[in-house]
Amino acid sequence: MSENISVLGLGLMGAALADSLLAAGHRVTVWNRTADKAAPLVAKGATRGVTPAEAVEAASLVIVCVLDYPATKDILRDASLDGRVVANLTTGRPAEAREMASWVAERGAEYLDGGIMAVPQMIATPGALILYSGSEQAYDRYEQAFAPMARPRYVGAEPGMAALLDLAMLTGMYGQIAGFLEAAALVTSAKYPLKDFTAELLVPWLNAMAAQQPVWAEKIESGDHRTEVSNLEVNRAGMENLARAFAEQGVGLDLLLPMKTIIDRRVARGLAHEGLSGLIEEL
Amino acid sequence: MSENISVLGLGLMGAALADSLLAAGHRVTVWNRTADKAAPLVAKGATRGVTPAEAVEAASLVIVCVLDYPATKDILRDASLDGRVVANLTTGRPAEAREMASWVAERGAEYLDGGIMAVPQMIATPGALILYSGSEQAYDRYEQAFAPMARPRYVGAEPGMAALLDLAMLTGMYGQIAGFLEAAALVTSAKYPLKDFTAELLVPWLNAMAAQQPVWAEKIESGDHRTEVSNLEVNRAGMENLARAFAEQGVGLDLLLPMKTIIDRRVARGLAHEGLSGLIEEL
Repeated sequence: MSENISVLGLGLMGAALADSLLAAGHRVTVWNRTADKAAPLVAKGATRGVTPAEAVEAASLVIVCVLDYPATKDILRDASLDGRVVANLTTGRPAEAREMASWVAERGAEYLDGGIMAVPQMIATPGALILYSGSEQAYDRYEQAFAPMARPRYVGAEPGMAALLDLAMLTGMYGQIAGFLEAAALVTSAKYPLKDFTAELLVPWLNAMAAQQPVWAEKIESGDHRTEVSNLEVNRAGMENLARAFAEQGVGLDLLLPMKTIIDRRVARGLAHEGLSGLIEEL
Repeated sequence: MSENISVLGLGLMGAALADSLLAAGHRVTVWNRTADKAAPLVAKGATRGVTPAEAVEAASLVIVCVLDYPATKDILRDASLDGRVVANLTTGRPAEAREMASWVAERGAEYLDGGIMAVPQMIATPGALILYSGSEQAYDRYEQAFAPMARPRYVGAEPGMAALLDLAMLTGMYGQIAGFLEAAALVTSAKYPLKDFTAELLVPWLNAMAAQQPVWAEKIESGDHRTEVSNLEVNRAGMENLARAFAEQGVGLDLLLPMKTIIDRRVARGLAHEGLSGLIEEL
C-alpha cells in the first residue's frame, strides 16, 4: 500500500531513508534545513516541503532524522501534528525519547521512537535493523511502510526502549572493538600479519565466544553466577599473565584494565568460585 | 599411524588430551603428580609412568600440560629428552616459551609450544583449535598425531608466537565480554528480557560488526586511519551520549571508560577525522 510519508532531515541517513521509501513506491515529501539536499530526491519523484510545517502536513506518517532531540522539537514546533504519527529516528537517550513522547502526545499525535542499527550505506540492505518503541497501534499501522528502510522490530510501549536497546548494542560493539584493538596491538608488536590473525583466528573465535552470551544472559537473569568452565580465580590468573605479557611486549593494556581491577576485587571478596557473569553486580 | 606419545599432567585439560589420543589409537603413556588421575586413562589402555622420566622415555613425542612453565621444567629436569619432541601445551607467556625452547634445545630435544583455544570440554570436538610454534620439522612430523586433540595450526618458528596469538585471542574475548556485561547491565536496568536481547539482537549484531575487523586490520597495517563511516568526532559524541544514558539509568560504565578517555584525547589532538582504528596508536 502506497502511503503519504514525510522525511524531515536529509543528512546521509535521512536521505538514505527517503530514497528507500521512494524506491518502494511511497509518496514522499522531504524537507531539510539547507534546501539543496532535497534536489536528488526531488529528481527521483519526491515533493519538497518549503517549511517543516508544510512537509508535516503533506503526510500521515512523519519520519524525523536530525542531529538531536532539541533539533527535532525545533522542527516540529510550528507544525500541525494532530492525528498524525511521528516516528523519530534521531539518535538520543531513553530519557529524551520518553520526554519527546509526552511532548508529541500533547500535540495530538501518536509517537514512535526508533533506533537505527545501521550506517547509512546499509539502509535498504538485509543487514539493517530499526528498533521501534512507543505506540503499538502506530507501529502496526506502519510496519509495512517501515520495511523498505530496514527490517523493523517493535520492542515495547515504553518510548525509551528502542533508544536504550540501541545504546546497549553500541555498548557491546565498543567492548568488542576495545578487545580487537588490544589484540591487534599485541599481534603487531610481534610482527605477525594482522589481517591473517584477524580473519583466520580472531573473528571465528569471537563468533564462537559470542554464541555463549545467551547462556551468560540466563545466569544473569537467575542471579546464579556459579560456573564449571572458568571461574574468577582462573580469570584472575589469566589476566595477570596477560598484563605481564603486554608489559613484556611493550604494549599498553589500558582498555582492559578496569576488567582486571573488577575481577581482582571480586576474588578479594571471596567470590573466586563464580564466573565472569558475576562482574555485572559491580556495574 | 600409531605413535608412542606421553602426556604429562592430567588435570582436566591434560586428561582430555590423553583421552583423545587414546581414542585415536595411539600408544599413550601418562604421568601425573597425584597418581589417581591416571586410573581412568589406564582403564582405557594407557600405560602409567611411575616417574616423569619413565613416562618421557617411553615416547618420542612428549606432551606437557601442567600449571605453569616452572612446573614444566621441574617435571622434565631429570628425564632424558635427547632426540625427542617436547610439545608444551601449558599456558604461559611468549617470553617463557622462548626461554623454554632454549632450555629444551640444550637437552637435545626439538621444541613446540602450543596454545590451546578451547576449554577441556571442547577437546576432540570440531570447534577446538591448538596453535603451535617452534620447530617446523617437529610440527610436520606430528601434525597428524596432534589432530585428534584439536585442529592443529602452525604459526611460525618463533617459539613464543603460539602463546602470543593465544593471549591476543583471549584479549579479544575479554573485550567482547566487557562490552556484553555493560550492555547487559543497561538492558536489565530497563527490565527488558536479557536473554531475548542477547540472542535476538546483540549476538547477530556483534557477528556483523566482527566481520568488519579484517577491514580495520588492513587500515592498521597501512597506518591510514581515515574513514568514511564513523569518525572519532561521531564516536566522541556517541560515547558522551552513552555515558549520560548510563548515568541516567544508574549503571556504571566502568569497563568502557578508558575507551572514552582515549577517544577524547585523540579528538583533542586534532584527529577527529580518523576512525576508531587509530586508537591503536595510543596503546
